[in-house]
Amino acid sequence: MKLNNINIGIIGLGHIGSRLYKEILSKKRDIKLKTGKDINIIALSAKNFNKKRNINFNKNIFYKNPLDVAKNSKIDVIFELIGYANGISKRVVETALKNKKHVITANKALIAKNGDYLSLLAEKNNVNLEFEASVGGGMPILRTLKDGLSTNKIHKVVGILNGTCNYILSEMEISKNSFKNVLKRAQSLGYAEPRNPKFDLNGYDTLAKVRILSALAFNKKISKNNCLMNGIEDIELDDIKMADKLEYRIKLLGITEIVKDRLFERVHPCLIKKENYIANINGVMNAVILDGVPVGQSVVQGEGAGPGPTSSALMSDLISILRGNIKYPFGMPFNKRKKISSFDKNQYINSLYLRFVVKDKPGVLSSITKIFAKNKISIRNLIQNPDRKNNIASIIIITHQNLEKNYNNLFKNLSKNKFIIKKPIFIRIENV
Amino acid sequence: MKLNNINIGIIGLGHIGSRLYKEILSKKRDIKLKTGKDINIIALSAKNFNKKRNINFNKNIFYKNPLDVAKNSKIDVIFELIGYANGISKRVVETALKNKKHVITANKALIAKNGDYLSLLAEKNNVNLEFEASVGGGMPILRTLKDGLSTNKIHKVVGILNGTCNYILSEMEISKNSFKNVLKRAQSLGYAEPRNPKFDLNGYDTLAKVRILSALAFNKKISKNNCLMNGIEDIELDDIKMADKLEYRIKLLGITEIVKDRLFERVHPCLIKKENYIANINGVMNAVILDGVPVGQSVVQGEGAGPGPTSSALMSDLISILRGNIKYPFGMPFNKRKKISSFDKNQYINSLYLRFVVKDKPGVLSSITKIFAKNKISIRNLIQNPDRKNNIASIIIITHQNLEKNYNNLFKNLSKNKFIIKKPIFIRIENV
Repeated sequence: MKLNNINIGIIGLGHIGSRLYKEILSKKRDIKLKTGKDINIIALSAKNFNKKRNINFNKNIFYKNPLDVAKNSKIDVIFELIGYANGISKRVVETALKNKKHVITANKALIAKNGDYLSLLAEKNNVNLEFEASVGGGMPILRTLKDGLSTNKIHKVVGILNGTCNYILSEMEISKNSFKNVLKRAQSLGYAEPRNPKFDLNGYDTLAKVRILSALAFNKKISKNNCLMNGIEDIELDDIKMADKLEYRIKLLGITEIVKDRLFERVHPCLIKKENYIANINGVMNAVILDGVPVGQSVVQGEGAGPGPTSSALMSDLISILRGNIKYPFGMPFNKRKKISSFDKNQYINSLYLRFVVKDKPGVLSSITKIFAKNKISIRNLIQNPDRKNNIASIIIITHQNLEKNYNNLFKNLSKNKFIIKKPIFIRIENV
Repeated sequence: MKLNNINIGIIGLGHIGSRLYKEILSKKRDIKLKTGKDINIIALSAKNFNKKRNINFNKNIFYKNPLDVAKNSKIDVIFELIGYANGISKRVVETALKNKKHVITANKALIAKNGDYLSLLAEKNNVNLEFEASVGGGMPILRTLKDGLSTNKIHKVVGILNGTCNYILSEMEISKNSFKNVLKRAQSLGYAEPRNPKFDLNGYDTLAKVRILSALAFNKKISKNNCLMNGIEDIELDDIKMADKLEYRIKLLGITEIVKDRLFERVHPCLIKKENYIANINGVMNAVILDGVPVGQSVVQGEGAGPGPTSSALMSDLISILRGNIKYPFGMPFNKRKKISSFDKNQYINSLYLRFVVKDKPGVLSSITKIFAKNKISIRNLIQNPDRKNNIASIIIITHQNLEKNYNNLFKNLSKNKFIIKKPIFIRIENV
């Protein structure tokens, strides 16, 4: 950046935008010291001007239409903090890039869906598009992939990428409370969306982050393929307790790896041995483990969300823009980032934990184990817990390793079994 | 960097230099993709041309005198991989910077001692001085401080920064073997210097890294002051076992923090509760915990040393130089980095673990506890283990919190006690 006076526009003034606004004002001197630039916020935009916010600003810099900010010829850097993959956020970023403004966004859905298109747009217009805050705010994981480990050959990335899910699973274990109650608690603490927490709980949020990590770790285009994705909505306290007894802990992991030159991305709850590093990341913390050559294993951990960590990441993007040349948003030119075909998830080999609630009748166990045998799935452990009062029993089965394909057939057959009175729970066992 | 052809010189061809040489050759295409630059190694230098190395190079690019490389007008980037704080390594870096070459070094002793002077030299000559590999090769911790967390106000940095010490302490716990035997094993595995491992064991290596971290975390000049430094040489298997019983683990930590606007740097073995994150960093791994505002707690972990992780860090420095503008070596201009006065270590308040070997006679315990009382140090736990056969006993004492100053007096008084037959061991108890 050749100019010494940099004008900034912030679009979106929720918790993150408001915190960022204050953070920029309080760090002006520090930024001048580190980059030599004077920065000024000259435009703000939000859906609702009158909403109560804990910031004071000159109403003359408020714009009702965010596109007016994105087009404003006086502005050098735009922060997009609206959210959502499409709609106005996409139009704002598009417009800003086309108007040769640098863009900083915290919007993982936008980048996971439109990141390739937008990065090409940034390259064509010779501006920066930065999105460190889109994955694990408190841990500078994207910068670590782009800069710190940039020449390593990374082959696997494993992460706890959603603070909401991790909080719920940790809290269920600690408080011995039900999923429903802990979710309520998470909502009251601001760790889960009060209205619709679905996209955190079903794994979608983690998947968006996994896709961004894959593109950066493996220098590829962002994958659009179907992906193995399960959320944590079906996990019950009984599973948490049973995992505990078996010396496991349940975590929702996002995993991306190269298997036989193909990309295998997945998001699902995992049973992980308690002594494992990632099993000990609790509460709203995020963590990522990278396996690369020559670096070996590298770990980054930090608070995953919230205004503090997110604004830290947004500020690091701003500093990077103020300090540096134009950089490729994904570390290398758009046209050099090849597509990668997907590993067939049916070929994935893993062990499963399954829990059934069944009628407590003679012949139940043999009926169920027969289905396993028919699908050539062998059982490593079987635990029966009868509940005589209600005339039901729970059966926990841990399988030997087998193909995902066979498990799918198993599930189909099990769903027809008349003794099983509730949809079986299954959780994959992961050796991270 | 405006040129598209970049010429590189490597000075020092030990394990690190040789690995880097191969790494650069194998990553030329990748570097071209990511930075647009063609790189060529056009000069090598090492003490001994004839030493057996596992690399092949054209003997015409070998220089006997490293200063000829540092002055070579065709070279753009120099890697200094000789080591030592002064002498030829310093002259090489000085000469290269004065000749307007970018310098990348893995030399923590050099940077900890001469980093301020050299960074000023780099700034004056408008070139980069990079030293990511000087602290924890596999974890990009310096880049994280300079870029990823650049506008955070960091107030404390705690790290396991020496793989040798961490390996020895972990291995003593696992193998129940003596310090001496485990050190031998570490030497045979290449984890400890075969001839003189002193600077790893006595904390000096960790201190050099702590000083670099302080300068970056707190935006200050590198401290030259005396510092609280103890090594691990006196720790015995008995201490490891006793720590284990008390639910602690012993780790050599490097800690730097701002206490009452003053800098408090220290390196010493610590007793840390086993459930603590940093107590579970084992073997040759390194880890750093940063506390900052607004980011909260951020953790970086990776392999600390060895040719793989170190060359990963060196390559990240190269990429940074090839991609970017001229950057301040310590993240901000030399003349804006103020000196910071030191916190008086005598005012440090902590709890101690002490172990004495005493004659097993009546009156011993009262004689020792009297010394504690005289110095107003109160005892939280006391454990006596008699060894009747040898007519001795060991006494373990854990104190309530007290001033470092009072402990110093305690040690003086204890050293005169006639019942104590070996210098007492003391380890600080740390709540990380």
